[in-house]
Amino acid sequence: MKGVNVGIVGATGMVGRAFLEVLSERKLPIDNYYFFSSARSAGKRIQFLGKEYTLIELDEYIVDYKLDIALFSAGAKVSLQYAPLLAKNNCVVIDNSSAFRMDKDVPLVVPEVNAGEVKKHNGIIANPNCSTIQAVVALKPIEDKYRIKRIVYSTYQAVSGAGMKGYTELENSLKGGAPVNFPHPIANNCLPHIDVFTESGYTKEEIKMVEETRKILNRPDLAITATTVRVPVFDCHSESINIEFEKDFDLTELIETLREAPSIIVQNNHMGSEYPLATNAKGHDEVYVGRIRRDMSVKYGINMWVVADNIRKGAATNAVQIAESVLEEYFRG
Amino acid sequence: MKGVNVGIVGATGMVGRAFLEVLSERKLPIDNYYFFSSARSAGKRIQFLGKEYTLIELDEYIVDYKLDIALFSAGAKVSLQYAPLLAKNNCVVIDNSSAFRMDKDVPLVVPEVNAGEVKKHNGIIANPNCSTIQAVVALKPIEDKYRIKRIVYSTYQAVSGAGMKGYTELENSLKGGAPVNFPHPIANNCLPHIDVFTESGYTKEEIKMVEETRKILNRPDLAITATTVRVPVFDCHSESINIEFEKDFDLTELIETLREAPSIIVQNNHMGSEYPLATNAKGHDEVYVGRIRRDMSVKYGINMWVVADNIRKGAATNAVQIAESVLEEYFRG
Repeated sequence: MKGVNVGIVGATGMVGRAFLEVLSERKLPIDNYYFFSSARSAGKRIQFLGKEYTLIELDEYIVDYKLDIALFSAGAKVSLQYAPLLAKNNCVVIDNSSAFRMDKDVPLVVPEVNAGEVKKHNGIIANPNCSTIQAVVALKPIEDKYRIKRIVYSTYQAVSGAGMKGYTELENSLKGGAPVNFPHPIANNCLPHIDVFTESGYTKEEIKMVEETRKILNRPDLAITATTVRVPVFDCHSESINIEFEKDFDLTELIETLREAPSIIVQNNHMGSEYPLATNAKGHDEVYVGRIRRDMSVKYGINMWVVADNIRKGAATNAVQIAESVLEEYFRG
Repeated sequence: MKGVNVGIVGATGMVGRAFLEVLSERKLPIDNYYFFSSARSAGKRIQFLGKEYTLIELDEYIVDYKLDIALFSAGAKVSLQYAPLLAKNNCVVIDNSSAFRMDKDVPLVVPEVNAGEVKKHNGIIANPNCSTIQAVVALKPIEDKYRIKRIVYSTYQAVSGAGMKGYTELENSLKGGAPVNFPHPIANNCLPHIDVFTESGYTKEEIKMVEETRKILNRPDLAITATTVRVPVFDCHSESINIEFEKDFDLTELIETLREAPSIIVQNNHMGSEYPLATNAKGHDEVYVGRIRRDMSVKYGINMWVVADNIRKGAATNAVQIAESVLEEYFRG
């Protein structure tokens, strides 16, 4: 047995660094790591689990490393070019880009919601969009119990969702600098513009939230609408989620259902000013849910406030959880 | 004729200063101004329209000034104490606090929406909550044409909504200071907590948005729900508004209807990255509306993004507009 080989593609980006952080915490049964980057970063050294590694330039020779699993977070273009090549060579690609998410043959997985999809892969498994991951973790237990009729999303997304350049953009903007990576200043603004606009008037981020939620919850016709907004916050996405159910519910029971669900921390003591906050979610893998209250404007509905670290659970942690599922299959098979 | 006497109560606060700014711009037919403040600020001097005034300590002798109109922005407690006293003495109080807004005998006025209510006053006219004012200006023209069925509000509110102390709170928080006026750090956070919580799980700010929208639109049973959130932005409130209509509509016609409505600037060229922004609305009296798009999750619905300067149109400008209506009646009578 050759041992398990894992490749990280895009190791120097914000999500790539979080891959290293999460992998070093969770101690997966991996024998060899390989780190790939663009030509610009290739040759640089990085420290990981007490060892030094040299970044390898990403090209078609990546197949020579006999990778069992590759974690990709280097943008859709890189994924489109290299993921199919690796998939053909017995590697399972876990891709954090949007490139394959809506492909029928590609599972789109949030382990707390649809772990069973992992084994249906054909070499590529997609990691959902950050804003979708935290939403579906919170929606799944109540979808199972009360069946969702409609969702209205309004998001409050951190600049880290745009990677390192989002971070530097807010830093510069807070100092009065002109916008470089965003279309408008992000300091003192809420930009209702994440990813690019489509002719429909919706941004791709909004369309992702609608389509990915449907796919992950396996509700292809679920009524969903979204407004996604970048706010001047460095880390963690917050979401105002309005949900209408098919069935009536008891609010205390609904909250209890969320409390018992995996990877959720309920913070619902509003009289004590306790509710999910970006500054508290930072660095954690759980999804924080609070402000859970009956919406009196519909027959059966609630509002809730959902916060998570978009780089951890919204990207790296979720991808590593998928890798764990793949490895379980690997050792079982 | 004694001339028109106007009193400003709370002249040193954030809204009070905006009163002076708006009054000096709009040149109302006012003969004498009197400025009232707490004992702490009384005796200080302020400049207004090229003259110097001394702040007068607010007490029951305010009736001696024979005020025709008093603009109040010194909190609900002060309004409760002095507004009825002035009303009894032939003064029309335009009150920016929440003290009287939901009283049946007190008109709650946004001139673009329900100017006709002004003449129904019994000495007190209430100025609505900032987040409600900008919303109803944008809702009124489409309510008239398509009749609204339901509204889901999610707000992105500036710290200036909490007055000067909101401003200093964000300044300190951005420097790493611990929270003083807010329950949690406002830098790098979105706080789903404005005004105090009620047992219902909703904050008073959320309840205000629901009840005041109903009263101003004269739709006492309109289905509305709200999540109000403080964001780390100094000025101007942004709002994600999801609206369901009773009737079908043509989107182009709906946008045209908004364009033609008073005090609205439509910024809906999303392909050109043009949409309402807090940094652009600052200092202006108009309500900016954009990101107007059909909501495919209901039969007849839209999403839109509404931004306005919460201290100008959301408070001072609206109150001064009400004063203008009162003066018109005064000179007509």
